[in-house]
Amino acid sequence: MRMVNLIQKKKRGEILTKEEIDFIVQGYVRDEIPDYQISAFLMAVYFKGMTKEEITDLTMSFVNSGDTVDLSKISGIKVDKHSTGGVGDKISLIAVPLVASVGVPIVKMSGRGLGHTGGTIDKLESIKGFKTEMSIEKLISNVNKHKMAIVKQTQNLTPADKKIYALRDVTATVDSIPLIASSIMSKKIAAGADRIVLDVKVGSGAFMKTVDEARELARTMVEIGKLTNRKTVAIITNMSQPLGREVGNANEVKEAIEVLNGNGPEDVTVIALTIASYMAVLGEAFKNFETAYDELNKIIKSGKALEKLKELVMIQGGDPGLIEKPEKLPKAERHIEIKASQKGYISEINAESIGVSAMLLGAGRQKKDDEIDAAAGITVTKKVGDEVNPGETICILHTNLTNYEEAEVMARKAFVISDIKVSPVKYIYEVIE
Amino acid sequence: MRMVNLIQKKKRGEILTKEEIDFIVQGYVRDEIPDYQISAFLMAVYFKGMTKEEITDLTMSFVNSGDTVDLSKISGIKVDKHSTGGVGDKISLIAVPLVASVGVPIVKMSGRGLGHTGGTIDKLESIKGFKTEMSIEKLISNVNKHKMAIVKQTQNLTPADKKIYALRDVTATVDSIPLIASSIMSKKIAAGADRIVLDVKVGSGAFMKTVDEARELARTMVEIGKLTNRKTVAIITNMSQPLGREVGNANEVKEAIEVLNGNGPEDVTVIALTIASYMAVLGEAFKNFETAYDELNKIIKSGKALEKLKELVMIQGGDPGLIEKPEKLPKAERHIEIKASQKGYISEINAESIGVSAMLLGAGRQKKDDEIDAAAGITVTKKVGDEVNPGETICILHTNLTNYEEAEVMARKAFVISDIKVSPVKYIYEVIE
Repeated sequence: MRMVNLIQKKKRGEILTKEEIDFIVQGYVRDEIPDYQISAFLMAVYFKGMTKEEITDLTMSFVNSGDTVDLSKISGIKVDKHSTGGVGDKISLIAVPLVASVGVPIVKMSGRGLGHTGGTIDKLESIKGFKTEMSIEKLISNVNKHKMAIVKQTQNLTPADKKIYALRDVTATVDSIPLIASSIMSKKIAAGADRIVLDVKVGSGAFMKTVDEARELARTMVEIGKLTNRKTVAIITNMSQPLGREVGNANEVKEAIEVLNGNGPEDVTVIALTIASYMAVLGEAFKNFETAYDELNKIIKSGKALEKLKELVMIQGGDPGLIEKPEKLPKAERHIEIKASQKGYISEINAESIGVSAMLLGAGRQKKDDEIDAAAGITVTKKVGDEVNPGETICILHTNLTNYEEAEVMARKAFVISDIKVSPVKYIYEVIE
Repeated sequence: MRMVNLIQKKKRGEILTKEEIDFIVQGYVRDEIPDYQISAFLMAVYFKGMTKEEITDLTMSFVNSGDTVDLSKISGIKVDKHSTGGVGDKISLIAVPLVASVGVPIVKMSGRGLGHTGGTIDKLESIKGFKTEMSIEKLISNVNKHKMAIVKQTQNLTPADKKIYALRDVTATVDSIPLIASSIMSKKIAAGADRIVLDVKVGSGAFMKTVDEARELARTMVEIGKLTNRKTVAIITNMSQPLGREVGNANEVKEAIEVLNGNGPEDVTVIALTIASYMAVLGEAFKNFETAYDELNKIIKSGKALEKLKELVMIQGGDPGLIEKPEKLPKAERHIEIKASQKGYISEINAESIGVSAMLLGAGRQKKDDEIDAAAGITVTKKVGDEVNPGETICILHTNLTNYEEAEVMARKAFVISDIKVSPVKYIYEVIE
């Protein structure tokens, strides 16, 4: 087998066999195939696509390139959840305790990664003492007992995907559905998931900018799930404005607490309940989505969901008092209010601009080793559809930095005020299963 | 400027500016842009193409990446000729003395290159004593006096094209019209050509397999010629079977002598006269093609054309006696006759198979440093349209090797004999100017 012939084959739009895909992936991980051949191949995949079978073979080749997590000692169906990423996305902080509260075992493994704000791990680390590293034995015993764990991924999962992702990033081949789908699904499968719920975000703050693209990605991943015997449900959710009111780390924890208290913003609450409900159904705690949604909503109202978050914090070494008194979470020194310059209705809040602004305030990492400031972030006080008057606060920046001019400009520019009344946005577009 | 953004731009089918193309080409030559970004870019060019202006900018960027030959001290219009390559292509050996004989100055610079048989340089080196290296001063004085020189390219012309070509070869991006056209035209422009005649070959022995592809390549190169102020004519010629009867080095020189004697095979004679006529017209020796063709044909009949080849051999140190007595050119020890196995008409002679067979007999190089055997080659005794009887010789292999079985199999397989009468092939498809 010669790599140049496989590039040629894909370039012509022909279908690669499992053996050919393995040759490419494992050859690259072993440094037997050079970067320049892989990048040409990736560009050919961008233009010619892959069949569902090819994407599944690619996914499993990524899984087989490294370690896999064995969760077989955890009783029950292990349901995992993944979000394609957005601004103000604190859904995992809500869904994990909520689903665990009905007895479905949840192991959430997260990387740190780059991004506008930290990942789930970073958010939890704003709770004093919270530990996200634990042995696999401890993980298994925790989940068997408490039904939940949120931990840092420490094993060498899907190294082929990591190596290819780094190459895609510098060769303009990130935005290819087969490559995105196999990257996400391989990580979930390697992490030991039996069944998977995917939150595919669409809009200005998401990687997918249109519902059509999001639907194609969602369908592809659900199909990979079928072909690998991991039942998968994908929920296409709105990311055309920041999710909820809080963007950052400590302030997103605060908002997660509000949702679990029954006092959260409607968008986060609805999306979190929807995702948690599909997780609970996949975990066979409920027969159907409607029942699950009603029951989980009742659990929130009863206070049990928040108790479960407190339990999570406790078993992972954090201070559960902070869940009762979230005002004690890290707070920034400076709070800059941005005010409306005209009367009207908020017609757009560019989520990506808010994300970049939050990062500039200290909430996210530009480089891999950057430190995150748990206290930094943005509170979005007005959302799309809201009426505003001149001088009314539309968002508040929280930071410990003194040079926040650029962040302020970015945040201000994110808001568009219109003269005509604007309808509030839809939270959930579609569910694909 | 960031390379990843330029890859993205081309991937989206957008048009690159001259500055952007220069950034890519010069950055790559200076090792500032890595192979893996260039190969992704080349694949994007394969899929999205380039405008005539982009291809012209790419061509001139290749030219500016290295040395250029200054032929301004040669009086008259310097006309160059290029062939996209075929099997049995000895046109340059005929056209150079023919065009020089009407006073048009011709500087033919050739590389060695890989291929089924040697290049023009290798063919001429089968003439004892013929030297293909000379100083630029000597070259200029020779061409001013004798109107011709055929020399080895020694300067560092178009290094960017060389580097990119090597990468294309291993990333399945060879067959892209913008990349082929800019590669060819940049070499001609760097070599100092004022006007250019291109022999674009099409068929089983050529890189372009269909007339449509050949036409697109031809039009692209003629357009680059216009935009760079180097008038260019492209002639699309048939390479569906080997050109003439001889394939090899010494035996191609022999056939060139026959053509210049007026006794050559019809196909080589017609194509050589056509190309030489366009060269002579571009060199302003004649007003139009028809006059040029008639006059050059008369020059052949008068014996002056062959005298001019003898003159070329003499001024470059070769033995002119060999032109008078070509039977003294290198001869192989073994001659293997391949015979028809059935009665019928030759319907196909796969030129590529004949080329590979000749290479296996010693006529070409597989690797850059391989030695060429001037005596090795194939004489094609029957051509498409010819009637054959069982046992009649269809071709003769010439070799000094003893292990010629593979070559014999290849040559035999090249011939297809049909029961029904087959028309002879067309020599010239189209002229684009």
